[in-house]
Amino acid sequence: MTTQQLIEQIQLKKSFLCVGLDVDLNKIPAHFLELEDPIFEFNKAIIDATHDLAVAYKPNTAFFEAYGIKGWMSLQKTINYINENHPEIFTIADAKRGDIGNTSSMYAKAFFEDLNFDSITVAPYMGKDSVEPFLAFEDKHTIMLALTSNEGAFDFQTLDVDGTRGEAERSGAKELYKRVLETSKTWKNSENLMYVVGATKAEYFTEIRKIVPDSFLLVPGVGAQGGSLSEVCKYGMNANVGLLINSSRGIIYASKEADFAEKARAEALKIQQEMEAILQS
Amino acid sequence: MTTQQLIEQIQLKKSFLCVGLDVDLNKIPAHFLELEDPIFEFNKAIIDATHDLAVAYKPNTAFFEAYGIKGWMSLQKTINYINENHPEIFTIADAKRGDIGNTSSMYAKAFFEDLNFDSITVAPYMGKDSVEPFLAFEDKHTIMLALTSNEGAFDFQTLDVDGTRGEAERSGAKELYKRVLETSKTWKNSENLMYVVGATKAEYFTEIRKIVPDSFLLVPGVGAQGGSLSEVCKYGMNANVGLLINSSRGIIYASKEADFAEKARAEALKIQQEMEAILQS
Repeated sequence: MTTQQLIEQIQLKKSFLCVGLDVDLNKIPAHFLELEDPIFEFNKAIIDATHDLAVAYKPNTAFFEAYGIKGWMSLQKTINYINENHPEIFTIADAKRGDIGNTSSMYAKAFFEDLNFDSITVAPYMGKDSVEPFLAFEDKHTIMLALTSNEGAFDFQTLDVDGTRGEAERSGAKELYKRVLETSKTWKNSENLMYVVGATKAEYFTEIRKIVPDSFLLVPGVGAQGGSLSEVCKYGMNANVGLLINSSRGIIYASKEADFAEKARAEALKIQQEMEAILQS
Repeated sequence: MTTQQLIEQIQLKKSFLCVGLDVDLNKIPAHFLELEDPIFEFNKAIIDATHDLAVAYKPNTAFFEAYGIKGWMSLQKTINYINENHPEIFTIADAKRGDIGNTSSMYAKAFFEDLNFDSITVAPYMGKDSVEPFLAFEDKHTIMLALTSNEGAFDFQTLDVDGTRGEAERSGAKELYKRVLETSKTWKNSENLMYVVGATKAEYFTEIRKIVPDSFLLVPGVGAQGGSLSEVCKYGMNANVGLLINSSRGIIYASKEADFAEKARAEALKIQQEMEAILQS
């Protein structure tokens, strides 16, 4: 999917909601456990109930891998179901991958070709040659961690780093996540980059927009993790919206009863309506 | 496996060789492609030919995921084959995972419980709460990226960071990878940590050993990537050896002909003999 098609979907649906599919078998209605593929069937029910309110789905690979081969089959069925029934939906493999070049190429092949996701999340620690293999794929998107929504974000991401390493001149010092954003803009096919920026740090969006004014930002942390939608939009939105706001637990676990899909839709609708109001204001 | 058991194996085999299993179907002898599970059969042949010379095997998850469900089945069969036939071997899932706490818990479950690996590689960017869920597993080991063997290592890992963020006092500035090492020592169950340090940067081992004198270091980059075994040992070895030297392509692709297993063994033997000489010196 092209970025332009994603923007059109946002305008059409008046929504920039991404629904995170982090299925924990302990948290879904018990009747699913009797089915052959409970994870897929649960995802299918959530997708059926919310696809007109969301522009993106984000299966989290960990929650599939934890169930081994069966989990990987559920992931395959989930992405196929979305691609076949809702090709207008932007799909994100939340996988946080990244390795030396020849290995990153294999991950890109796994998620862009074998599974046919539109995008994948990656980690920046190993630098340019660990990310560029993902960027080489046309109309595929690589969503790199910049400033995450968890507590541990402050361990390394917000440390001041020198503008120029080893030189006495330290005036260029800035936080690591900013350096990550800046440096990534120099990489080949960097127009295929998007970034993860946690909603729990809304005050940072102003600074981030100075560095990447036009990029899409995938924003976790609204809902269960405590971030505010209106704050994120206030500081993070650009002319093309430029935001995908993720909600996982708040939507998919809105109820553990028979009405789980209805409740999931109600939660998604609440967020979509907030988004519609923001887009019109 | 406990660290003590790993040390005993190193002493017994006079080897601290780890064989990386990065199977690319384009690089293995053609007759494997006619078998039902070429990746597993190739790995099995490599393991059969080298298990007395190596103390560890490191399947690289990307090379399995690239083949989808079939690839995940090959991974399962490979780890089961090692665990059943060579329980004395230390197994490493080279997966470079890391995410918010509840997600990292799922990855830990996937690799430590479902697949029963002894260890997994993880990325540090998301900090403490992205790594601690892995550390909570007894007699399992979490191998965190510190200084990697690729060019991109210099993009962020070697940037100077301030000792104390936001304070005028900048005398504590040091490279990010050192800060990662230091900080990780304060995490819960940090005794379960090992670190990835690339062989291509042998001169860095002296500094690294000042911070983590007792930890095991997993060292890629000897062979195909150009690092020197003797240099790494000179600066990186501790009283318990404390090193696992990985070779992937140099061993498993020593030949593409019918003699591939023999040639792989010859390459592994060459390295083991160098290691034996170093251990006796």
